Amino acid sequence: MRTFECDYTEGAHPNILEALLETNMEQMSGYGFDPYTARAAEKIRAACHAPDAAVTFLAGGTQTNMIVLDLLLEAYEGVISPKTGHINVHEAGAIEFTGHKVLSLPENDGVLDVDALEAYLRTFYADATHEHMVRPGAVYLTHPTEYGTLYTRAQIERVRALCDRYEMKLYVDGARLGYALGCPENDLTLSDLARLCDAFSIGGTKLGALCGEAVVFPWEAPKMLMTQVKRHGGLMAKGRVLGVQFDAFFTDGLYERIGKEAIRHARRIREILLSKGYPLAWNSPTNQQFILLSDAEAEKLRAYVGFDLWGRADDAHWIARFTSSWSTTDADTDALFDMLPDRAALQ
Amino acid sequence: MRTFECDYTEGAHPNILEALLETNMEQMSGYGFDPYTARAAEKIRAACHAPDAAVTFLAGGTQTNMIVLDLLLEAYEGVISPKTGHINVHEAGAIEFTGHKVLSLPENDGVLDVDALEAYLRTFYADATHEHMVRPGAVYLTHPTEYGTLYTRAQIERVRALCDRYEMKLYVDGARLGYALGCPENDLTLSDLARLCDAFSIGGTKLGALCGEAVVFPWEAPKMLMTQVKRHGGLMAKGRVLGVQFDAFFTDGLYERIGKEAIRHARRIREILLSKGYPLAWNSPTNQQFILLSDAEAEKLRAYVGFDLWGRADDAHWIARFTSSWSTTDADTDALFDMLPDRAALQ
Amino acid sequence: MRTFECDYTEGAHPNILEALLETNMEQMSGYGFDPYTARAAEKIRAACHAPDAAVTFLAGGTQTNMIVLDLLLEAYEGVISPKTGHINVHEAGAIEFTGHKVLSLPENDGVLDVDALEAYLRTFYADATHEHMVRPGAVYLTHPTEYGTLYTRAQIERVRALCDRYEMKLYVDGARLGYALGCPENDLTLSDLARLCDAFSIGGTKLGALCGEAVVFPWEAPKMLMTQVKRHGGLMAKGRVLGVQFDAFFTDGLYERIGKEAIRHARRIREILLSKGYPLAWNSPTNQQFILLSDAEAEKLRAYVGFDLWGRADDAHWIARFTSSWSTTDADTDALFDMLPDRAALQ
Amino acid sequence: MRTFECDYTEGAHPNILEALLETNMEQMSGYGFDPYTARAAEKIRAACHAPDAAVTFLAGGTQTNMIVLDLLLEAYEGVISPKTGHINVHEAGAIEFTGHKVLSLPENDGVLDVDALEAYLRTFYADATHEHMVRPGAVYLTHPTEYGTLYTRAQIERVRALCDRYEMKLYVDGARLGYALGCPENDLTLSDLARLCDAFSIGGTKLGALCGEAVVFPWEAPKMLMTQVKRHGGLMAKGRVLGVQFDAFFTDGLYERIGKEAIRHARRIREILLSKGYPLAWNSPTNQQFILLSDAEAEKLRAYVGFDLWGRADDAHWIARFTSSWSTTDADTDALFDMLPDRAALQ
Repeated sequence: MRTFECDYTEGAHPNILEALLETNMEQMSGYGFDPYTARAAEKIRAACHAPDAAVTFLAGGTQTNMIVLDLLLEAYEGVISPKTGHINVHEAGAIEFTGHKVLSLPENDGVLDVDALEAYLRTFYADATHEHMVRPGAVYLTHPTEYGTLYTRAQIERVRALCDRYEMKLYVDGARLGYALGCPENDLTLSDLARLCDAFSIGGTKLGALCGEAVVFPWEAPKMLMTQVKRHGGLMAKGRVLGVQFDAFFTDGLYERIGKEAIRHARRIREILLSKGYPLAWNSPTNQQFILLSDAEAEKLRAYVGFDLWGRADDAHWIARFTSSWSTTDADTDALFDMLPDRAALQ
Repeated sequence: MRTFECDYTEGAHPNILEALLETNMEQMSGYGFDPYTARAAEKIRAACHAPDAAVTFLAGGTQTNMIVLDLLLEAYEGVISPKTGHINVHEAGAIEFTGHKVLSLPENDGVLDVDALEAYLRTFYADATHEHMVRPGAVYLTHPTEYGTLYTRAQIERVRALCDRYEMKLYVDGARLGYALGCPENDLTLSDLARLCDAFSIGGTKLGALCGEAVVFPWEAPKMLMTQVKRHGGLMAKGRVLGVQFDAFFTDGLYERIGKEAIRHARRIREILLSKGYPLAWNSPTNQQFILLSDAEAEKLRAYVGFDLWGRADDAHWIARFTSSWSTTDADTDALFDMLPDRAALQ
Repeated sequence: MRTFECDYTEGAHPNILEALLETNMEQMSGYGFDPYTARAAEKIRAACHAPDAAVTFLAGGTQTNMIVLDLLLEAYEGVISPKTGHINVHEAGAIEFTGHKVLSLPENDGVLDVDALEAYLRTFYADATHEHMVRPGAVYLTHPTEYGTLYTRAQIERVRALCDRYEMKLYVDGARLGYALGCPENDLTLSDLARLCDAFSIGGTKLGALCGEAVVFPWEAPKMLMTQVKRHGGLMAKGRVLGVQFDAFFTDGLYERIGKEAIRHARRIREILLSKGYPLAWNSPTNQQFILLSDAEAEKLRAYVGFDLWGRADDAHWIARFTSSWSTTDADTDALFDMLPDRAALQ
Repeated sequence: MRTFECDYTEGAHPNILEALLETNMEQMSGYGFDPYTARAAEKIRAACHAPDAAVTFLAGGTQTNMIVLDLLLEAYEGVISPKTGHINVHEAGAIEFTGHKVLSLPENDGVLDVDALEAYLRTFYADATHEHMVRPGAVYLTHPTEYGTLYTRAQIERVRALCDRYEMKLYVDGARLGYALGCPENDLTLSDLARLCDAFSIGGTKLGALCGEAVVFPWEAPKMLMTQVKRHGGLMAKGRVLGVQFDAFFTDGLYERIGKEAIRHARRIREILLSKGYPLAWNSPTNQQFILLSDAEAEKLRAYVGFDLWGRADDAHWIARFTSSWSTTDADTDALFDMLPDRAALQ
């Protein structure tokens, strides 16, 4: 049975696999000192209009967040995250493993409440005991968020201004960035991110890589970057594996194309869900679509199609997730239309 | 000008100083292998009716919380704390420094909301992704709390039952424990703590020691305790300094007496505050009394008497703190009565 | 120009790539909950005759050492390593990053001096201050070693006996394990490792995987293994990438065959080196061959063939490394024979 | 029986106790914001001729080394220590607890071999793989050393020059610094240390404080010093306890006087030992004197006088330690003369 549970149920995009195949027997230096890694970095710098950016590649998302934040923060600093942020909920304490507190703040459907951020910072520095507290050293955001929602450029600019005022770094986790970039509603470009962030990631794993996230430090490379990555267990001997994949992503607009296509499929999934009577849990413009199901509905629906029981809405309802991805085809969404019963039929 | 800002503005209780003086030139082994440390531990075991308890002594409160929790928790576990808990707010990230996440939950005037705790645990284990999250490995409480409030024995028993059900440790931070034990409202004895907790501390610094906290592990000593304390930077070469002081605390009921006397003075302070028209911020039965002051009142009052601007109540009001301690005398509270103007006079 | 500098200059073995291609569009659960990962684990258990073993898969070698040792050790324990051990020299402090001291001991061409180990342990526990020191909690060995040399089964059995006597764990880092297993001189089987070690790794990256190491805990799975791996940044969303590769390694004896073939090529490389007058730095029975070159010779030789300037022998000489690997062919060694000048010609 | 086993068997110097007594009931702010701490810092700055130095006070020696080094080092850096350095041997892994590797180098009777240091640094940076290794970020020395020996000013200047050339910090652990300063052989003044070190400590515990070490950062205060100290569990609520003691140490030359007197007593102890036929293990000009005893001699001698079995010299001999301290009197050394049998009598 076809499942729509998440965007990493398949392997790699055909272009990526082909690039790995074609380069397989070329002899290259290890640890990222190969021409494909250099080329991928160069293409990413060009795509971001950030000619001085340091670009590096890591294998996974939690590893990326752990390493980037540990490099951005002073040892004694914590990182502000929306309460629902991935680092605050689903990374098994990897940030705390590196000694940093996650300072969680209110959000709306996954988007940090910037008023709450401003109030928090004002209150923090007004508190005479703040040197006994954990200094906020960075703000962590995801784009798109864990709820599939998006920041506006204006919101990120406001966060940036607060970062400047209170001497904090800004890091945007783009594990699903391609699915934001592919959205008509999105007004945050790679160039904007390079202009506004101290670091951001460009997710590969969920966009069709076997594994891999690119990290961009637009302004300044962290000291001893390779050493630090290795110290955190993140340095790959065959760095080429990441370089070749990201070189393919940024060749002929593949990364952008994957995002756009997946969003087209997500719109179709949403239409199908709505047309069959399923209420959206909230409005997500990206590749993850969330609906509300009663426990009984959820139980019955599982016989028809694969989806993710993403979380509890309340004691009697689930939030269920249907995703599109780089691998979704029109045949898949047609099949969804055929498989999915009317909600009324689940009663 | 006499200040009532906190309970550690003076040095040591006379009996404690005298004990240090009397034993000063005795030659003793270091690192806690001296007879006074052994005797203090023995007296604490007796006071707790916990003949098998491991008792150790540390220099400060944050150090104590950091070490005890790091020893109680598995590396991958976090600790549940009321949102207002000292480890969550005022320890500069010392818990995260040891790699553990603080999982904060709602509270009422500093007292953990046990219903919220129960709901959190039920939800956590119902979540299919909980192995990607930080496992709650312990519950941290303060008694009295940062707000001067107290847990009831029934509340702690309920927390203990949840700890048993969900395989968690219970640690009570007793930095001001003596001021709870001295309260008529308190129904939690040292024996209760030894029966209900995996570890608890008996605060010395705020009760009249130069420095020092006793830690009781009622059931089981952590492995390699001295080595672990040293690894955290907490082992004192002259362990006697802590042993002699706690031996004095637990001689002729000094610790208990200090608590009772301070509470008597706190009642007098409260009466004085109320009689002069100052509204309590909330009801604290222990040695810290909290009142509400407008910004203008706070500014003017500072000319009359020393107190602590403890925190903001709202944009126009302070919460101010007046404390009694082991050092407070009837003359002090008489002086407070004389110095303190009627609130009306501050308008 | 063909290089023999190391065993990770190419991508993946053709069978591995093919397995990735064939399974690419199958939908599978993430985080290692896919059928290929289960099958790879099962095949490894069978190959090790360790039906109860926990088997997990990680992306890289340093990550593997960091995670396995952090899971085997108590927080306050250190790990004994030969002075030349990878964790002591070339992992950028990843072990210390997790809080553990590396306790280095003498070795011979990379092989731990077991007499020195025994003397160290006897001395350690005879020292009255040993509780102020770092307790040795595990022994770390590499097989083959960084020098290409091998332990005998008798040596490992002796280390195991010391581990039993002094309550330590034994971990063997098998980043190049296949190249040991393929050696006629090797008498340590996978079954022996499963019988003697608390954990060992089976290296994939250097044996022809894109990335990946298998870890075997023969007797007992660490608590909360997936959570702990994620906390260290090591959990891959597409766990299948590792599972599919190791399933291929352990299908039809591929892993074993790769090792044997590479050793056959290494023997030919050694013969060529010796026949052309190059002196071995020491005797390595595995896939890495080390020769001594004067600085002038090294400089000149680089014009003929690619190799690794592995380290300094003394102020005027290099140790140079030539390796075979899963990718070496008879054509490659024939080419080496043709390209390599007589040493005399370099004078 | 009088023991000479170590220099922390008694409590505090009378002047120190008196200062604590006299100031006991003064109300002061906590956390080091009291006038005595300020005054002690000012006096230390004056004594070091370092008007811009940041001075802070910590409770113990291991804590001091752990915190200072963690503040001086980048996260990814290690610290060079003589093999016999306290941080490498007797601090239970406190340095590794903070994530840093101790890089141990050869020494002579506890004094770092500066030639070996120079060779190590040259080799390290000549190694093409050094970015996979732990960067040496600081040099740690003790003065006097664990063997009671002293560095010359010329040696420290040479280490400083290497620190400058290779961008490292220099930290001198002065846990027994007063006993160096009191030596005629010593040519390293407080001013020299302030000129040559990035940080150094002035030990109090072993010089007659109840507890306490002063730390001097001559050139530049670490960022957020108080916060960082608290994060490591080292901030004392009653900071006055340390401030008052160090104020007393630096009043009327007490610290210097204690050192000189103890050295006078150490000379007498040495003479007594030699006159009774005990061979020195090596020459120590400071307050610790080391002799060689056969196992049988050691066993018998313990019936006469207290001393420390400091370590094994070989399989049949002990190194035994006799110390003087701030508490030693002429009566004590007279008693030693009376109690100590001729070595011949132990046969």
